[in-house]
Amino acid sequence: MGGVIEGCPAGMDFHHEVISRDMNRRRPGQSEHTSPRNEKDQVEILSGVFENKTLGTPIAFVIKNEDVKSSDYDSLKDVYRPGHADETWELKYGRRDHRGGGRSSARETTARVVGGAIAKMLLHTHGIEIIAWVSAIGNHALTGIPDSIDTDVIESNTVRCPDPQLAQKMITDIEKARQHGDSLGGYVTCICRGMSPGLGEPVFDKLPALMAHAMMSLPASRSFESDGGLDHISMMGSQGNLLQQGSSGGITTGHNYIMRVGFKPVSSIAQKQIMKTRDGNTTEMSISGRHDPCVLPRAVPIVEAMAALVVADLLLQNKMNQ
Amino acid sequence: MGGVIEGCPAGMDFHHEVISRDMNRRRPGQSEHTSPRNEKDQVEILSGVFENKTLGTPIAFVIKNEDVKSSDYDSLKDVYRPGHADETWELKYGRRDHRGGGRSSARETTARVVGGAIAKMLLHTHGIEIIAWVSAIGNHALTGIPDSIDTDVIESNTVRCPDPQLAQKMITDIEKARQHGDSLGGYVTCICRGMSPGLGEPVFDKLPALMAHAMMSLPASRSFESDGGLDHISMMGSQGNLLQQGSSGGITTGHNYIMRVGFKPVSSIAQKQIMKTRDGNTTEMSISGRHDPCVLPRAVPIVEAMAALVVADLLLQNKMNQ
Amino acid sequence: MGGVIEGCPAGMDFHHEVISRDMNRRRPGQSEHTSPRNEKDQVEILSGVFENKTLGTPIAFVIKNEDVKSSDYDSLKDVYRPGHADETWELKYGRRDHRGGGRSSARETTARVVGGAIAKMLLHTHGIEIIAWVSAIGNHALTGIPDSIDTDVIESNTVRCPDPQLAQKMITDIEKARQHGDSLGGYVTCICRGMSPGLGEPVFDKLPALMAHAMMSLPASRSFESDGGLDHISMMGSQGNLLQQGSSGGITTGHNYIMRVGFKPVSSIAQKQIMKTRDGNTTEMSISGRHDPCVLPRAVPIVEAMAALVVADLLLQNKMNQ
Amino acid sequence: MGGVIEGCPAGMDFHHEVISRDMNRRRPGQSEHTSPRNEKDQVEILSGVFENKTLGTPIAFVIKNEDVKSSDYDSLKDVYRPGHADETWELKYGRRDHRGGGRSSARETTARVVGGAIAKMLLHTHGIEIIAWVSAIGNHALTGIPDSIDTDVIESNTVRCPDPQLAQKMITDIEKARQHGDSLGGYVTCICRGMSPGLGEPVFDKLPALMAHAMMSLPASRSFESDGGLDHISMMGSQGNLLQQGSSGGITTGHNYIMRVGFKPVSSIAQKQIMKTRDGNTTEMSISGRHDPCVLPRAVPIVEAMAALVVADLLLQNKMNQ
Repeated sequence: MGGVIEGCPAGMDFHHEVISRDMNRRRPGQSEHTSPRNEKDQVEILSGVFENKTLGTPIAFVIKNEDVKSSDYDSLKDVYRPGHADETWELKYGRRDHRGGGRSSARETTARVVGGAIAKMLLHTHGIEIIAWVSAIGNHALTGIPDSIDTDVIESNTVRCPDPQLAQKMITDIEKARQHGDSLGGYVTCICRGMSPGLGEPVFDKLPALMAHAMMSLPASRSFESDGGLDHISMMGSQGNLLQQGSSGGITTGHNYIMRVGFKPVSSIAQKQIMKTRDGNTTEMSISGRHDPCVLPRAVPIVEAMAALVVADLLLQNKMNQ
Repeated sequence: MGGVIEGCPAGMDFHHEVISRDMNRRRPGQSEHTSPRNEKDQVEILSGVFENKTLGTPIAFVIKNEDVKSSDYDSLKDVYRPGHADETWELKYGRRDHRGGGRSSARETTARVVGGAIAKMLLHTHGIEIIAWVSAIGNHALTGIPDSIDTDVIESNTVRCPDPQLAQKMITDIEKARQHGDSLGGYVTCICRGMSPGLGEPVFDKLPALMAHAMMSLPASRSFESDGGLDHISMMGSQGNLLQQGSSGGITTGHNYIMRVGFKPVSSIAQKQIMKTRDGNTTEMSISGRHDPCVLPRAVPIVEAMAALVVADLLLQNKMNQ
Repeated sequence: MGGVIEGCPAGMDFHHEVISRDMNRRRPGQSEHTSPRNEKDQVEILSGVFENKTLGTPIAFVIKNEDVKSSDYDSLKDVYRPGHADETWELKYGRRDHRGGGRSSARETTARVVGGAIAKMLLHTHGIEIIAWVSAIGNHALTGIPDSIDTDVIESNTVRCPDPQLAQKMITDIEKARQHGDSLGGYVTCICRGMSPGLGEPVFDKLPALMAHAMMSLPASRSFESDGGLDHISMMGSQGNLLQQGSSGGITTGHNYIMRVGFKPVSSIAQKQIMKTRDGNTTEMSISGRHDPCVLPRAVPIVEAMAALVVADLLLQNKMNQ
Repeated sequence: MGGVIEGCPAGMDFHHEVISRDMNRRRPGQSEHTSPRNEKDQVEILSGVFENKTLGTPIAFVIKNEDVKSSDYDSLKDVYRPGHADETWELKYGRRDHRGGGRSSARETTARVVGGAIAKMLLHTHGIEIIAWVSAIGNHALTGIPDSIDTDVIESNTVRCPDPQLAQKMITDIEKARQHGDSLGGYVTCICRGMSPGLGEPVFDKLPALMAHAMMSLPASRSFESDGGLDHISMMGSQGNLLQQGSSGGITTGHNYIMRVGFKPVSSIAQKQIMKTRDGNTTEMSISGRHDPCVLPRAVPIVEAMAALVVADLLLQNKMNQ
């Protein structure tokens, strides 16, 4: 994996530890609630940084994955896993690299996390902070937005839920799902604090439009809600007009902007499943390897990364209006 | 309003009546359930079409609005309407054209409808059909997707709901909201039929990502759900894997693709409201003019237009893979 | 014709007379040395300007040409004019609009002139000035760059050459060409003054690269020279290093930037010519209508317009580095 | 160095030797007529190729330069070399990496050569061939285009000039320049054969416009001529109309397209020179290291690479018209 980040102004302090922290939060195997596969993600910065300062030129990076054994994937050569891009990829391109680690793999989110960490460094210089947390898993949902968002509380449990009691229930349900070889979906909520008014472009590139694009490009995401979302939709107009909004007409108001992203349960489960094969038949098999019964906790830094990239893009775009 | 559509291949039949039909469906004042303001929307094709065939060059169009009187908006010169971009626009640009009809006005959706109609002409040559309908207003929601989507049934009632009995209840509630000077939100559901497998680009420009971008750029939209959406999120993985999906890994499967877009209640209501003023104070006033208590029925052709533009873009993009 | 200009900051004074002046300089029929066809070019600003100030939003404009009679072009329906895009256009798209005024017509440069005039308004606020003149027609060439570039002197003769005596010789040769039903090519030189250091992007979007792109997109242009051009190429390195350059590594130095653009003689000439026909044969005919024996004087405002657009783009781009 | 190539269709044969051949032709130190510095350019393909076939996804590559010693550049830390981007870069970004190998170094052309080699593989499947040669060095210029372009003849001498006798004179002059610690400029001519009619986009992205952009983005290029160039400009229209052109209205005709690119003499010369220093003074010094007295022979594969990338882009773009 790898990527190129453009637009960082020259002379910005470059903090490698911001990248490491988020790569660790994304990493499989952080706890017993997620898959213990140990990916050694080495992020190598190839350009754009000199003596820990940005040069103003594109920042290219590569993430080598030294842990993948292609042979692990040999059994998948002729089978299409449910919920994966295996079949559509082959329909689109006529061929695919059946080994893990490609662009249709969840590993592509490592590059998003690195890019997002660099964006966070830029946002930090503008006083903008982006924090996400798990707001629901299975039947357990946090109602409303906590009065104060405390990163330490969020990170204090393995499911990254700011309500420790609810977190315990989620953990129990994830364990049950694991025992049944099954999986659970849920929601990540994200807040953007400190955005000055005026970010977002009229008509097509409104803040919520870019955020929706970013979030719905994530593997397994299925829903996006902006600024009050489902609650606002079910209100009367006279009520809704009283809500504090982070964006209006797609442009930031100066208030906090909040969104919620829904993720389906992962489709790689330990149970035996019926799968389509390349020759047009079906087979019943279980996908070997260890599986996360719930990706929500690991989705938290990925959602943050995408949000940070969107806000950074709008900051750059907005420089043109000034 | 106006726009430029690029990418239509040369020699395509150009059906002006497709544009007229959708412009009429978007038009305010179609029924007593929507605002009876009579916009005379004259769509003028400036380039790219010759003898009712496309030339392969950009199709530019202008929509003149001969009905707007700038004086209607004089009372709004120093007041920020709730839920409008009045204030954020001014914070962003330092000035705004307070008269109606600008890029922050709902009238900008006329250009989307014209573009979408041209996209529909292209999709028609590929056997692709896009149909939307109102699936919920206020408390009244259609459960599931109708077995057969019948455009005549959808268009047979003023709220564009395929269930005539539910439509009647919606109409009653809209009337109640109108009488209270209030407004209602709801949902539009949209189906894309006939897309061949392989549309959608890996990583960032997946089909659901582009659709989310398009839909969340619409005025008043607040949520987006893709391919099973909230239902899929709350399932176990073993159940979810059995769902038929219109996209997998962001690429079309060949099955129907379905999405749902939520719209908040319109913020221009007849009731007196507290509004912020340019000098930093507030005032209580009602916004003059006639107001739609519910824009959902008029959002139907707009959602279709955006969906058609997204699919047309992906068709063009996909030509590169072949 | 028409276009959309993005990126003008809000609140910029909008001077309609800058547009009028350049449209008049581009207009055919300014003198006996150019074709006296009287195009009535009405530039209508559709958006982005309010009370003579920019709004910060895109500036759309349309130029209606009320003088074209499609019937004038009926004789060209089945004939490919030499040096025109008639045949290649038809090979590319399978069809073309044989009437004048399309995107392959020289009339498309009206939109460039309008866009360039708006760019000049922006450059003016940055103290940047762009001036072009005719430096050669046929055998008559100005050697070197005049010590002082005086717009009044340039505009004082119909060929826009800053040397009045040379101008007279050019005029005589153009008259000779007209009498023979023939045409002449030549060179336009352009200077950009007042650009601060740092404009231009590394690698692919260097200042000379963007200028070359812009100039070689003009109808009839055949050569581009940058910053010393042919003279610098024929020097030894030790000499060349002593030249003052307007760009270094593609980025402005703060010194004047000078370029030279060569235009071939126009291919629409009054003489009878052998032309290819749509059915694959040839015919000998003369193209009816009046023809410019030399477009160089009219190319001057067009070259300025393209240079202004390039510098304006780089100014906007450079805001990101700050 | 590195880059990402998008748009190669899936299933294309990937020939690593095409890359190696052009990297070797670009490499310094091929002969005594160019600098004998031995760069070990290892091209590593990171993605997009599987079992020697393209996957249809982006092809990322990195070129490691194991030979650079940063200490070689220590003397340049506070000095601006003439004709280099040292000063403008610092004015633009406020800082620069003074060590060699950055984006303002001639080494960045390695990435162009790799990209161009991949583009050539695509062009080969369309029967398109791109061949460049040295047409002038110093005072020695080839007149006209050779009747048959023979790659073996071009590559048979170290200056890549298809006329062996002229080549010998060029070599003699380069040697003289080297002995004087000086340098020479010249011209590269390039032919594109086998392009079908219809490539090139109207108005702004005409074939000559994109080629000019590409060529004028090369280090040291100063002029660009298209399709007859200076000769055509000095003709009468009646003569010029008889020329066979590779493009008309910016769109390919099906005939060979020929262009000529002029390169100034390199500014890194062994002679002592006066240089500006970072503190605003000047110093007289010579730039250490070995210097190419003439880069023209090495520019040949780079010009080919840029031409190949332009044509490949237009091929992809043109798919949209079909």
